[in-house]
Amino acid sequence: MDRRSFLKTTALGGTSAAAAATLAAPAYAQGKRTLTMVTTWPRGLAGVWDSVERFATSVTEMTDGQLTIEPKAAGELVGGLEVFDAVTSGQADMYHGADYYFTGQHPAWAYFTTVPFGMTAPEMMTWYYGMGGMQMHHELGEIFGLKSFIAGQTGGQGGGWFRKEMKSAADFQGLKFRMPGLGGEALGKLGASVVTMAGGEIYQALSTGALDGTEWIGPWSDEKLGLQEVCDFYYPAGFHEPGAALSVATNLELFNELTPGQQKAIEVAAGDAHQHNYSLFMANNGPALERLISGGSQIMTFPDDVWDAFGAGSKEVLDGYMDDTMFADIRNSAEAAMTATSGWAGRSDGVYTAQRDRVLANLK
Amino acid sequence: MDRRSFLKTTALGGTSAAAAATLAAPAYAQGKRTLTMVTTWPRGLAGVWDSVERFATSVTEMTDGQLTIEPKAAGELVGGLEVFDAVTSGQADMYHGADYYFTGQHPAWAYFTTVPFGMTAPEMMTWYYGMGGMQMHHELGEIFGLKSFIAGQTGGQGGGWFRKEMKSAADFQGLKFRMPGLGGEALGKLGASVVTMAGGEIYQALSTGALDGTEWIGPWSDEKLGLQEVCDFYYPAGFHEPGAALSVATNLELFNELTPGQQKAIEVAAGDAHQHNYSLFMANNGPALERLISGGSQIMTFPDDVWDAFGAGSKEVLDGYMDDTMFADIRNSAEAAMTATSGWAGRSDGVYTAQRDRVLANLK
Repeated sequence: MDRRSFLKTTALGGTSAAAAATLAAPAYAQGKRTLTMVTTWPRGLAGVWDSVERFATSVTEMTDGQLTIEPKAAGELVGGLEVFDAVTSGQADMYHGADYYFTGQHPAWAYFTTVPFGMTAPEMMTWYYGMGGMQMHHELGEIFGLKSFIAGQTGGQGGGWFRKEMKSAADFQGLKFRMPGLGGEALGKLGASVVTMAGGEIYQALSTGALDGTEWIGPWSDEKLGLQEVCDFYYPAGFHEPGAALSVATNLELFNELTPGQQKAIEVAAGDAHQHNYSLFMANNGPALERLISGGSQIMTFPDDVWDAFGAGSKEVLDGYMDDTMFADIRNSAEAAMTATSGWAGRSDGVYTAQRDRVLANLK
Repeated sequence: MDRRSFLKTTALGGTSAAAAATLAAPAYAQGKRTLTMVTTWPRGLAGVWDSVERFATSVTEMTDGQLTIEPKAAGELVGGLEVFDAVTSGQADMYHGADYYFTGQHPAWAYFTTVPFGMTAPEMMTWYYGMGGMQMHHELGEIFGLKSFIAGQTGGQGGGWFRKEMKSAADFQGLKFRMPGLGGEALGKLGASVVTMAGGEIYQALSTGALDGTEWIGPWSDEKLGLQEVCDFYYPAGFHEPGAALSVATNLELFNELTPGQQKAIEVAAGDAHQHNYSLFMANNGPALERLISGGSQIMTFPDDVWDAFGAGSKEVLDGYMDDTMFADIRNSAEAAMTATSGWAGRSDGVYTAQRDRVLANLK
């Protein structure tokens, strides 16, 4: 499966592949490499493209350009959902995308983006960096010839926009709602008529009544799409994508040929980009939500019986993949981490922030 | 104030300072540098020393040893609280510590560790990386000749251990309690007899009744100190250190002489270490809390009137520094960020995790 073509795109282009393979370390003393990073995203997509840029710039600058990462928007080299095949086949060197787009390759990829009723962003960090998640990401990647790292994070995605209030689980029966992935499957268990639809088509579908509601990303991104103009009710808390990570995956053969310093630069730049990107979404979602409230959007929470139905639907969907050993191992690891840490998080940060916000409001 | 001595400790030692200053970039082609990083910590201190190692190893490996970071434990070169002076004077190249130890130099340093009634770790990330906090850290550092980055994070620190239940704010009157820093000052406003005491002395003081209670770090660290053996009541949520960051500060003149790639390596390694360290504390605090519960510790929450008193005391302490313009600017920036983002965080992650944990418990 040695179909990588990265040499064609590097400054080593003039040398033969055989000569390149015998380069003595450190390679940077002898030549620069440009790595082509295909992405799932339109160039400049708010928040998401910032993660692409942060990662690419960090690696390029830290290696003094010995490893220059050149991002390509969706469609520039391959289509947005073709990035996985492009990198495993060696047509491109790395991809930046959301791994849950590749559940057709293996259902466990979902765990390295987000799953319904799964981890929040801080919980994902904890599992990934502190409780073995990264090692499992690497094990899954190796099956496909990839070295994978999470490198971006949208934080919790909103429950979504509705044209009417959701008063009980029964209100989802027949509801035409846009939600992709495993969350959409779970919503189908409630009787919703689940639609997948690209971002650019949503506004129009809501305007004409072709859709009764939609999820998108969070207040920052949703406001840009104008969803508040076509739906009155916004539910900030949702069950379907509680903390969605974005990933960088490098062709494994290529990765193994990099110097240890270059490999470390990719790992550390990805970690830094994950945290930076989460911060960026949080920094923008908060003020955007306040603007939506000022603009008249009704801010709602689903009643308990809706959450019960979300939970049961999510469990049914995830249980359906448990005959795959790797899926089961990864799910069990993620859920064990969530259980082991949520008690402390809720009793410390959870209690603290509720009390702090109450007390500070009174002190004003 | 050109008293730096870093050249003495580098491979460039044989060249004169004047010659070193005219080195053409990239410097790494011409020599390796070893940077001495003094720290506030005993070698191997659980969690905290992991942040030291993660940062030092990342920089060293990413630069292929062109920039080798050599950590020194407290007392090996200078005392734990002397690291600030050691780096500003050039006796050492960088420090790893908690910036709130240096409020004697400027009160605003507290904001780059934690302040009472301040930000949780995710909020700190958001402000620091997404809302201007890092720039303010740099501005404060420049006054003292430092380039500062946060590079570690304990997460929220527990409210502490008590020998009796705290039923109202009046119970703090005369209470002999160990709590350092601004939190301790705030606790003094409730009438507590606040004591500062090194970690190694706490157990004995509680055993003999010289102390009625103490805060330390979190379940992971507290359990190691054996606090559950000498106090029955544990309050996981506290007001005094809601998310304590650790920092790396480099002598500014030295930092400015590094190559852009080396500077970027320090910045990115610090960001990655911050996230890694937070994950490590969260990964260990959760299971430790469960062990404490199994062992019979009583897990408590302070009643509302105690939180009201904590809030009023904290405000009084912070207000006392507001005649300093830089302190005021930094406080206003941090509090504006907290206000702008806590609405989204509470309504999304807050609602979600409460519902998820409720539903999953029922589904078992």
